Amino acid sequence: MAEKAAHLPPLDPRNPLAAIESAADAYRNWGRWGEDDVWGTLNFIDEAKRVEAAGLIRRGTTFSLSQLFDTDGPQNGWRRRTNPVHTMLDTGVDAARGNQGFPHGIGGADDVVFMPLQSSTQWDGLGHIFDRGRAWNGRDCGEVVTGEGDQVTGIEKTRDRFVSRGVLLDVGAQFGENGELPDGFAITPEHLDATIEAQGESSHIGTGDIMLVRTGRLARARRDGWEEYAGGPAAGLSFTTAGWLHGHEVAAVATDTWGFEVRPNEFDDAFQPLHQIAIPNMGLFIGELWDLDALAKDCATDGRYDFFLTAAPIPFTKAVGSPVNPIAVK
Amino acid sequence: MAEKAAHLPPLDPRNPLAAIESAADAYRNWGRWGEDDVWGTLNFIDEAKRVEAAGLIRRGTTFSLSQLFDTDGPQNGWRRRTNPVHTMLDTGVDAARGNQGFPHGIGGADDVVFMPLQSSTQWDGLGHIFDRGRAWNGRDCGEVVTGEGDQVTGIEKTRDRFVSRGVLLDVGAQFGENGELPDGFAITPEHLDATIEAQGESSHIGTGDIMLVRTGRLARARRDGWEEYAGGPAAGLSFTTAGWLHGHEVAAVATDTWGFEVRPNEFDDAFQPLHQIAIPNMGLFIGELWDLDALAKDCATDGRYDFFLTAAPIPFTKAVGSPVNPIAVK
Amino acid sequence: MAEKAAHLPPLDPRNPLAAIESAADAYRNWGRWGEDDVWGTLNFIDEAKRVEAAGLIRRGTTFSLSQLFDTDGPQNGWRRRTNPVHTMLDTGVDAARGNQGFPHGIGGADDVVFMPLQSSTQWDGLGHIFDRGRAWNGRDCGEVVTGEGDQVTGIEKTRDRFVSRGVLLDVGAQFGENGELPDGFAITPEHLDATIEAQGESSHIGTGDIMLVRTGRLARARRDGWEEYAGGPAAGLSFTTAGWLHGHEVAAVATDTWGFEVRPNEFDDAFQPLHQIAIPNMGLFIGELWDLDALAKDCATDGRYDFFLTAAPIPFTKAVGSPVNPIAVK
Amino acid sequence: MAEKAAHLPPLDPRNPLAAIESAADAYRNWGRWGEDDVWGTLNFIDEAKRVEAAGLIRRGTTFSLSQLFDTDGPQNGWRRRTNPVHTMLDTGVDAARGNQGFPHGIGGADDVVFMPLQSSTQWDGLGHIFDRGRAWNGRDCGEVVTGEGDQVTGIEKTRDRFVSRGVLLDVGAQFGENGELPDGFAITPEHLDATIEAQGESSHIGTGDIMLVRTGRLARARRDGWEEYAGGPAAGLSFTTAGWLHGHEVAAVATDTWGFEVRPNEFDDAFQPLHQIAIPNMGLFIGELWDLDALAKDCATDGRYDFFLTAAPIPFTKAVGSPVNPIAVK
Repeated sequence: MAEKAAHLPPLDPRNPLAAIESAADAYRNWGRWGEDDVWGTLNFIDEAKRVEAAGLIRRGTTFSLSQLFDTDGPQNGWRRRTNPVHTMLDTGVDAARGNQGFPHGIGGADDVVFMPLQSSTQWDGLGHIFDRGRAWNGRDCGEVVTGEGDQVTGIEKTRDRFVSRGVLLDVGAQFGENGELPDGFAITPEHLDATIEAQGESSHIGTGDIMLVRTGRLARARRDGWEEYAGGPAAGLSFTTAGWLHGHEVAAVATDTWGFEVRPNEFDDAFQPLHQIAIPNMGLFIGELWDLDALAKDCATDGRYDFFLTAAPIPFTKAVGSPVNPIAVK
Repeated sequence: MAEKAAHLPPLDPRNPLAAIESAADAYRNWGRWGEDDVWGTLNFIDEAKRVEAAGLIRRGTTFSLSQLFDTDGPQNGWRRRTNPVHTMLDTGVDAARGNQGFPHGIGGADDVVFMPLQSSTQWDGLGHIFDRGRAWNGRDCGEVVTGEGDQVTGIEKTRDRFVSRGVLLDVGAQFGENGELPDGFAITPEHLDATIEAQGESSHIGTGDIMLVRTGRLARARRDGWEEYAGGPAAGLSFTTAGWLHGHEVAAVATDTWGFEVRPNEFDDAFQPLHQIAIPNMGLFIGELWDLDALAKDCATDGRYDFFLTAAPIPFTKAVGSPVNPIAVK
Repeated sequence: MAEKAAHLPPLDPRNPLAAIESAADAYRNWGRWGEDDVWGTLNFIDEAKRVEAAGLIRRGTTFSLSQLFDTDGPQNGWRRRTNPVHTMLDTGVDAARGNQGFPHGIGGADDVVFMPLQSSTQWDGLGHIFDRGRAWNGRDCGEVVTGEGDQVTGIEKTRDRFVSRGVLLDVGAQFGENGELPDGFAITPEHLDATIEAQGESSHIGTGDIMLVRTGRLARARRDGWEEYAGGPAAGLSFTTAGWLHGHEVAAVATDTWGFEVRPNEFDDAFQPLHQIAIPNMGLFIGELWDLDALAKDCATDGRYDFFLTAAPIPFTKAVGSPVNPIAVK
Repeated sequence: MAEKAAHLPPLDPRNPLAAIESAADAYRNWGRWGEDDVWGTLNFIDEAKRVEAAGLIRRGTTFSLSQLFDTDGPQNGWRRRTNPVHTMLDTGVDAARGNQGFPHGIGGADDVVFMPLQSSTQWDGLGHIFDRGRAWNGRDCGEVVTGEGDQVTGIEKTRDRFVSRGVLLDVGAQFGENGELPDGFAITPEHLDATIEAQGESSHIGTGDIMLVRTGRLARARRDGWEEYAGGPAAGLSFTTAGWLHGHEVAAVATDTWGFEVRPNEFDDAFQPLHQIAIPNMGLFIGELWDLDALAKDCATDGRYDFFLTAAPIPFTKAVGSPVNPIAVK
């Protein structure tokens, strides 16, 4: 299906709407899995794919691809997104003082959290982004995501879906300096293909794979502070990768950035245009704020860039996204 | 190591403290994995065990063992535990009206959640329970879990650990009526052994396995309403299983109940005494409010009760527990 | 203006829509205070009224009319309303242990709260209720209250308004048994007039007054438990009081119940129909879950039912309501 | 009692502990109002004082002294303090679409908030600060404020207390440039006396008054952005005012700054030392983040700096502070 992309005219920075319309028309998957579909590109993962992925577990080594969830995070209040706030209901200090009133020396601690679901490592659900009034599968977005949440494609519908073969494309290592791409670096289909070529056979991407793209942006934040990690400039996928992603039939894509796609984007005036194609039109699941650094190091060491991956969202009913602790096993 | 249990005197309901002291002394793992240990029984999971577990993936079928997270849950405010409250920051209804001010037809929805970390399917962290002032590994609980959270054994320390062979023991199916044990039914070592025997070879339990015990309590709540699911009477593990769990060197145990152990417990006056042995003394991870019903049905159908299991906590820094969406793959 | 009410046909339980339409037409205040108005009936309070109210302070005695805000409250999760959850960020127990790292012996405690704004003693803002798509002053409700909150009549707009003469009408004492009206008791204009008559001169109600109506419902909840206090049956204002409230030009009305109006209401099938007239059509501010018992006792003792009243909302920007601790001074 | 202050040696920046000990000893009010006291300096407000205050209501003009509560606030995550996050449970946009399922055209909006209690305009409760292990009235701070909150002096205990005569001391206008004191400006007793002298008779301060001190810091934040408003340098009360505040028997003091006292403080190494004297030793209530600008302008215009003041906390049970919307009436 890669030729589809070739038919699109080159990206014109002055005309985002035309580009969005063309790409949406070219890569739209509405109806592909039936009228009632709530899984989008997760349909590409079948049981055979999971059995194949299981075969990639050779050493039994595990990697958590999640950032830590705490107030020392990237959020700055934009659109009311704060960092997670974790507080205690009861503590060991209380238990040590005998404040708790339980018999025979048992004591306990308990806690709560308040968090925007997009505040740290997360999946965007299918109800997270709309295109000209339409949510995934062509539904009226006003019917889908109301004040009570996502009535149709809530993240809980995918709770057993995110198990597949994962593949890491370390574009930062291939094209960056010290493994880090500069802000505004647009990762094109050519960069993806070149990275796959350079990394070797284990990096081939096909139907149902979950593709992880490392830019090095998080490594910089870890070193230099969060600064504008949330909402600021960053490397990321080019708008022109829409066809590539569609053609390769990936089940999901995740990055080590806030916004998945390149920022600022390639148009004079647009907001997250690749999201606009990917989520409501393709039904593609997008992961953001993932920590790919330790995994990348291991892949570089053993030369194997694919692995078994589970990335199960917490099934908040009717949520348009979810925190996730993705686990890669090699 | 099973004989250790045999040395303990029979449980005297009138003397919980003596029983707690004896069991704590007999099954204490302090220092077993070094002074700085933060993993407890998760140390039993090694890479070979994970490779073994990967071999259990034959069909590629996945099971989410998580309840849904929403206000229609079991919590009733006890110890300030509410059900999770999920609210929207932006909606499709807003996008449909053009309220959002984004260009070229992109619209979005976003959300937040407030939740006690023990409100639905969860892992108890090692900082959740103390025994006579001591946290896991013998640490002073007042040094470990302060108002700022668990300074030592926060759940984030285990973020890549929960991948192993899982085994379901459907005690409800063996000893219950219609698969449901009555409230107050204490599951003894004998019940566990008999269930393993009845279920067959795939149910053997050994070092590093994650053991899931189904009582049928959640099935009843699903049918009849939550009622006293949280904090009320239920079937669960007998205090006398402490030695069995210790001797079998399981990495973790999870149940389909609020409290893991039988309620009311077997003493005239005690509060969650098996927790008091398991968490601070053994370093055992306990999962509660898991949904084992669909998995149990599948196991009964194909006769295989073991599977690959990932159950990655969300790494809330310094938390004493975490919501989790455990995924079993067969 | 009382004759306006007289022109309305008697309430027909089978035809709520006709009754709502008639009352809305008869008592609508749209445009009365200009197109940009955000204060509704609070416009009735002028400076002279406040000076008059100040004259009611004779003894200097104060009454808080607020319930306590904690998890032991009336909410049960309906429409995701929980009770307030208060947790500590730091504690005296921590300070006593020297956990906090501050110099020279200073220690501190800090806390957070999560709460639905309607969870305890509160004001309904003008954006809380709509009538057939219209918010207060005839505005399109979809333009007024979006996913980002009330863009026009947020509660913060009233932050210096709620100071006036307050008058308590203890209908429970006049018509109830032991001061408590039975559930479903509809307080009619006749009951209001009779209560004023019985209580005497200090109970006259006029332009700009804040009227407090005691039913005794909270006293019962305090004695017998919350049960169905939130959302269940209760005494309250009859739909037929709309004209009375309009004609008397009260600035606000508050009650000791969850829902202000009688429940079940007087129609075969309607939901809070008096709200539908009062808030979007009249621009009337409604207070709910107020605690009027101690004040009522004092009024009965000294025979004076009017007082100086401040009831300042916390100015949450764009909120459609607010918790409040109303203070009466006699 | 002013001579007490005179007996203290001059402040030695190198020896904060000695200064704290001397001031604590000199100005401690423990036991002054009985062993069970929970009101501290609020005991100075008597009914006669409130009647006197009522006499200050001449025009009926009201001033809200509260900042707005929203995400555009001063907090930056320090000690897990975020700005308040307000989200909608239901909206007018939903109502306009007919999403809500209520009959006869009624629609509604509802909302929730998450907030640290110190995030905006607030009262510090008596359990907020400790001195060498002691809370107000000499209590062991570990007995008073546990993981479940303030067991003794929770803010709810004061819910009907904060009504008195208020006096504004506009030190910024007297000693600042354009009404704004520079950061680090320590307001001494001499500055307070000079301001009272300059403002005239209405500014006298005595037993039971609530004193408001304006520095101009909030005016600058409003103009230049929040920057380091929370926790950064600011003008504020000098440590040397402890005796003045004690001698004048004020009921409470509030400022337009984050920290009430001058920052950095006057010692080489200390943290909020005046808090350490004021709250646990004197039992003094401190208000922070108040907005005094509009009131100050009015006072300058009419030359009257005293007024009737209500500042009722929301009675969160066992809280160590509370948001407040203080209302001044002139």
